[in-house]
This record gives sequence, C-alpha cells and structure tokens, in this order.
Amino acid sequence: MLYIIGLGLGDEKDITLRGLEAVQKSQKVFIEAYTSLLSFGISSDGLSTLKEMYNLLQEKLYGKSITVADREMVEEKADDILLEATSSDVAFLVVGDPFGATTHTDLVVRAKKLGVDVKVVHNASVMNAIGVCGLQLYRYGETVSLPFFTDTWRPDSFYEKIQRNRKLGLHTLCLLDIRVKEPSLESLCRGKKQYEPPRFMAVSVAIEQLLEVEQMRGENAYTEDTTCVGFARLGSEDQLVVAGSMKQLLEVDFGLPLHCLVIVGDTHPVEEEMLDFYKLAKNQGQA
Amino acid sequence: MLYIIGLGLGDEKDITLRGLEAVQKSQKVFIEAYTSLLSFGISSDGLSTLKEMYNLLQEKLYGKSITVADREMVEEKADDILLEATSSDVAFLVVGDPFGATTHTDLVVRAKKLGVDVKVVHNASVMNAIGVCGLQLYRYGETVSLPFFTDTWRPDSFYEKIQRNRKLGLHTLCLLDIRVKEPSLESLCRGKKQYEPPRFMAVSVAIEQLLEVEQMRGENAYTEDTTCVGFARLGSEDQLVVAGSMKQLLEVDFGLPLHCLVIVGDTHPVEEEMLDFYKLAKNQGQA
Repeated sequence: MLYIIGLGLGDEKDITLRGLEAVQKSQKVFIEAYTSLLSFGISSDGLSTLKEMYNLLQEKLYGKSITVADREMVEEKADDILLEATSSDVAFLVVGDPFGATTHTDLVVRAKKLGVDVKVVHNASVMNAIGVCGLQLYRYGETVSLPFFTDTWRPDSFYEKIQRNRKLGLHTLCLLDIRVKEPSLESLCRGKKQYEPPRFMAVSVAIEQLLEVEQMRGENAYTEDTTCVGFARLGSEDQLVVAGSMKQLLEVDFGLPLHCLVIVGDTHPVEEEMLDFYKLAKNQGQA
Repeated sequence: MLYIIGLGLGDEKDITLRGLEAVQKSQKVFIEAYTSLLSFGISSDGLSTLKEMYNLLQEKLYGKSITVADREMVEEKADDILLEATSSDVAFLVVGDPFGATTHTDLVVRAKKLGVDVKVVHNASVMNAIGVCGLQLYRYGETVSLPFFTDTWRPDSFYEKIQRNRKLGLHTLCLLDIRVKEPSLESLCRGKKQYEPPRFMAVSVAIEQLLEVEQMRGENAYTEDTTCVGFARLGSEDQLVVAGSMKQLLEVDFGLPLHCLVIVGDTHPVEEEMLDFYKLAKNQGQA
C-alpha cells in the first residue's frame, strides 16, 4: 500500500490523525522536497523550516527515519519507491494536499499501472486556505502561474486568463514561481550537475511583472489601482495577509516565503467586510 | 480566542494535531451542523455519521462535552458564542475547511467587530479534495451550485457559467444542494416551526436537472455524452469516484451522501490517464 499523505501548510502539527496513523504503520517513509518551497538549502534566508519540520516528525511524532525525496528522486526513482509499496506499507509525505501538484498525480498513475494500492490522506492546500481572506472560493476563475521573467523569456499567457476572469467579475489566484534545486544551465553544458540557489517569487516581484505586462499589452485587464490580496506563509502561525491596490502592496515587505497573490474581482458585501480587515489604511505603506 | 477548526471530510480522524490541541485547551466546544450534510436526523437513510463522529470526538479524543450548533444557533446566537470567546478559549468545529461556506466568513466578521481574536485551523475541503480524480485544480473555472428544482422554481443561472467554462476548456465543479433543517413553508404559515426531512442531491438528480436545462436552452453547453466525474463521500474510507458520460453516470448508484459532480473540460495527457482509472467500461452501467 502506498499512502500519499498531505501535511498541510504550516508545520508538523498540521498532519491529520489519519495521516499520522498511516505514517506510524508504514515501513518506509518518504517526504517530498520538490513541489514545496519549504525546502532544504533555503538556509540562505535563514530558513530551514522543512528541515526542522522533518526532524520533528522523525523524532517526536513518527519514531522512525524519513527519506527525503527530492526532485530527481521523485522523477527518476519513483519505480523503486513503488516497488517497495507492492510488498509493504510506504508513506509518501507531501506539503499541502497531495493533488496540489501534477507530480503526485503522475506518481499515482504509475502506482496504479503497477497494481499498487494507493490511499490518499487529504489536507489543506493553498487552493482552499486562501479562503481565509474572505473571498468566496466558488467565485474564483481559472488559476494562473507567474513564472520568473528572464532577459530572454517573458511569457505572458496569464494575461488573457486574468483579463477573462476580471471581465466576469471573478477573483484570480496567482501561484508564484518557486525554483528549488534547478540544475544551472552552465553546469548542464559541462555535463556535471550543479544547482542554482533556490528562489521564490515575492508578491512585489509578481506585481512588477504583472504591471510590466499590462504596460506592454495596454488592454486594462488590471491597473496599479486594482485591489489584490497578498499572502505570505499561508496556514502558518505567522501568516501575513494584506489587501490593497497593486501599488500599495508593492511597498509591503511580506517577509519569508511562500507568497501568493489574489487579484480581486467583483465583491459581495460579506467579502468586502472581510477584506476590510486586511486592508491597508489609505496612503499607508505598511500593514 | 475563537478557534475555527476544520474537521476535514472523512471522520473524527481527519482533524489535525493542531486542531486537536486547540479543542483540548478550549473551555467550550461547538460543532456546526448547518453547512455540512452529515447532519442529525438523516437517520431516515440509516446515516448518523456526524452523530457518531461527534460522540467519538466527545468521548475519545476531546474528553469534554460538545454543543451542537445548528442553523438557527449559528445565525441567531452567534453573539453568545462570541461573548464567551472574549474571556475564554472557544472552539468552533466545522466539517471540511472553515471557509468552504459563507456562514463562517460571517462569524469571523462578527468576531473581529467585537474584538475577539480568531485563529483558523485549516483542513481539506471539497474544493481541493476533488483533485483526487486527476483533473488539475488550476484548470477549473467558476464553481456552480445546483439547487433542487421545484414545480415553480427552476433557476438555471448555472447554465451560462458551465457554458463559459467549457468554451475555455475548463472543468466545472458542481456543488449539489443540501437541505437540512429547513422550516416547512406550511409550518411557517401556521407560525410554528416544523422542519422538512433532510434532503441531499444525488449525482443522478443533478444530471437530470442539467439535461433538462440543456434541452430547454438548446445551446449545446454540454450533452448527455459529455464526460463527467461523480463523487460520493469524498475523503471518506468508502468514497466512490466514477468517470463517464452524463448518460452513463445517470445509471450509477452512488449511495449515501454527500455527492458532487465535475463536468470535465479539455484534458491534458496526465489528466486523461488518471481519469481512465475511474472510467466505466463502454456500455457498462456500473462501477
């Protein structure tokens, strides 16, 4: 049996009792460090949350060792993990909910093809926890992903999607780029993998990119006065949620990752009341 | 402090460790029986899941008594609950994630106005757990709600929304109507509240209503050959997920509540592979 277990968004206490039981009866436990930002090596920011978390999981909660499955392992050694699951219980731990990312769907597909039974233990993910800002989840349009622009690569297909959502009065969740353990182009050319330092997109960078694209397109899908909600560390004890215009949020220091951004559509009265609690005072730069 | 704690979708084991700790240190514990189907009095179906769940919570996990807050209590006595939270820790338990329903947003707004601190403990909700079928969450358009049709009330505003989503190739989550502890019209006229028996919409009823509206409108937003995914008891041990055409799913007995339905848009290869596992064989009526 392969258990794919969502850990939720905050720390080691966000696992469910069902998830904890599954871990405790598993012979092997893997934790993925791929799709989540909260990953090893982000120590350049003084952040080692996942590392601390998995130490805690290992020592206090689970009483057994955990293997960290990074990007390469999930993609290249999935069959080894699955082989173990044919004859014993294997737990695969995932930050958030198991189906927040395509990678895990792929793992399930492979498992089913090999005839391995799969049980999913759900948990909160960014996709539903953004509800905390008061905007109703059923009033969101298609979600967009904002990739880091480079000098030569500035894809802007998100623009039409945001435009469409806003024409319909719908909110748009923007998932912001995360680059963890990316092999550097240079190292790939030399035939020996070395990794770029990890990067995550901050709310301010996202807004700069959005406004750059708006300026190029000029179709008024949104402006610097469009109301948005910025989130940092959603679901953690020290989460930060701030509502304001794009221009205002540009000036807010959201601090450590993970960040995401919601572009607000038309609002109902109850939505408006909740947003007000998160709004910056006019002309005020900081929460 | 008011803790609003998501219980997740399955049973008493889906609470998180963080949620359990908050319950244990609270002086008063309420569980809402309003927005969730899994409610008292559904015993006409032999179902008393929430009742069992809350007995378990009460006895085994929490070691303290729980007050059931039904629809009237949440709407009429919210201020009493909040008053208690000004001077002590109060836990308010909600099936799924706290922000799946507007009611809880309203409770938070009221709390903040009274100066009561609020902490939210997130959990899985239908909005993200539907990811289990393999359709990527970021490829959903606006969510629609399907209300029970009556002889005189057959609202169909969901039709344009589904049509729009499908034109864009997006999936549509249909939330199906739940009627729990609704005062009967007759009893309201007599001035003494009596309640209708609880009802929940089955996948087959949802599809019948969808096809009726399609026949009236005739704009081919979808047809009886459109691929859908039906879900029953999502997130529970005995959940059922079946993919097939509307026509096929009409014949599937999904069993006990809660049901929901996804109308599938354009699919990517990985999505298609996962859906295949849930598909009915051609011309086969049953999973």
